Amino acid sequence: MAEKTVTAAILVIGDEILSGRTKDKNIGYIAEYLTAIGVDLREVRVVPDVEEEIVGAVNALRTRYTYLFTTGGIGPTHDDITADAVAKAFGVAIDHDPRAVAILRERYSAEELTEARLRMARIPAGADLVENPVSKAPGFRIGNTFVMAGVPSIMQAMLDNIAPTLETGARMVVETVEAPGIPEGIYAAALGDVAKAHPGVSIGSYPSFTAGGFRNQIVVRSKDPAAVAAAAEAVRGALERLRGDGVPA
Amino acid sequence: MAEKTVTAAILVIGDEILSGRTKDKNIGYIAEYLTAIGVDLREVRVVPDVEEEIVGAVNALRTRYTYLFTTGGIGPTHDDITADAVAKAFGVAIDHDPRAVAILRERYSAEELTEARLRMARIPAGADLVENPVSKAPGFRIGNTFVMAGVPSIMQAMLDNIAPTLETGARMVVETVEAPGIPEGIYAAALGDVAKAHPGVSIGSYPSFTAGGFRNQIVVRSKDPAAVAAAAEAVRGALERLRGDGVPA
Repeated sequence: MAEKTVTAAILVIGDEILSGRTKDKNIGYIAEYLTAIGVDLREVRVVPDVEEEIVGAVNALRTRYTYLFTTGGIGPTHDDITADAVAKAFGVAIDHDPRAVAILRERYSAEELTEARLRMARIPAGADLVENPVSKAPGFRIGNTFVMAGVPSIMQAMLDNIAPTLETGARMVVETVEAPGIPEGIYAAALGDVAKAHPGVSIGSYPSFTAGGFRNQIVVRSKDPAAVAAAAEAVRGALERLRGDGVPA
Repeated sequence: MAEKTVTAAILVIGDEILSGRTKDKNIGYIAEYLTAIGVDLREVRVVPDVEEEIVGAVNALRTRYTYLFTTGGIGPTHDDITADAVAKAFGVAIDHDPRAVAILRERYSAEELTEARLRMARIPAGADLVENPVSKAPGFRIGNTFVMAGVPSIMQAMLDNIAPTLETGARMVVETVEAPGIPEGIYAAALGDVAKAHPGVSIGSYPSFTAGGFRNQIVVRSKDPAAVAAAAEAVRGALERLRGDGVPA
């Protein structure tokens, strides 16, 4: 599998996430979305509405991964400082973008297009707009960085517009093996042996509580379908042998 | 208000969060919990089950904030590497801790206490244990860093045990002003003026979609109750004036 790897990070911007007042719904959504199209999400950060924090995180993440996706802070109010912070991170100017102003003029009458709403047309120099079919005020792409709204329905619509423009790598192939009735602590040694014998495959063990009690799932993951199939088979074999041995529950 | 500020970061460790397979439920819970007890959450990161990533993030966050809370990666399987990575980040040894072994011996018979389960007793030198009333295998505290389980019910129980040991600062006082029928783009200018006139107060504007349409909430936040009351009053006054002017919807 010599296919290229495409990586990404997410930067969530917003005091309201850090205060716990708003529960983030974007990280999980973007994570699942990127995984499905063959982009490997490698890191997530959440920072407050503070310019130097946003600038620092944008620069740390955009230089390390193929793509950076930001959410939040692109509305019309004084606390929406993401566009200015991203311009600063890229070292470019920012001003009202004629394309963005035109979009807002279509939505708002001259009287309605307040100075505050015009702030939503502030776009860093050299950026491309990302269409917002929900409430019109656009996101943007500059370099490898996509700046999206924080409201989930708007973010999701923007991501649908961004996805076709992304380079993608091989999709991750995932197989989940249920391990009913066998505690992690019993299959852990055998699972470690399987992991060692299949070095190109990531094997994770995920316990969770459900209404019926503990549930253990073993997740086998790689971009090579044959390697996943072989490792999953080895996991099932190891679990079968443990069952044959009379597993203590 | 010269009361001290106590800050914190969260580090979520786990491939399964980054793949989107598991949706994180810990960030929002810890955020709300810390806010309620007077600890300011300033940053969150999510990193994969990769030692150098965990070590790097632990060191970046523990040196910058009063406290660091980690979740995930302390189970018995080969992919649970958090304890070893945290020991490495602190530059200390790690071995089976007699106190943790004793806890596991109470839960498991000699036959059940596999080598894998004993891994859950690996605790960095100098750490204190954090009790786990749900499934026994403890978390730990080393320096300013608290290492907790990823399963939400266990994490929550551990956090309840940790909270009484934390230094806390003044609690944030929060007042939410609803702005029904007034779009953000209309009140943004007046809100910016209020924010400028109340520099010690954080004022955020949070739009959300609800079944009934757009809902705008203005959140006024500070550790000084009088300052919050004054700023919230100013926000309400500004909204009243806009309503009196006949706001375009």
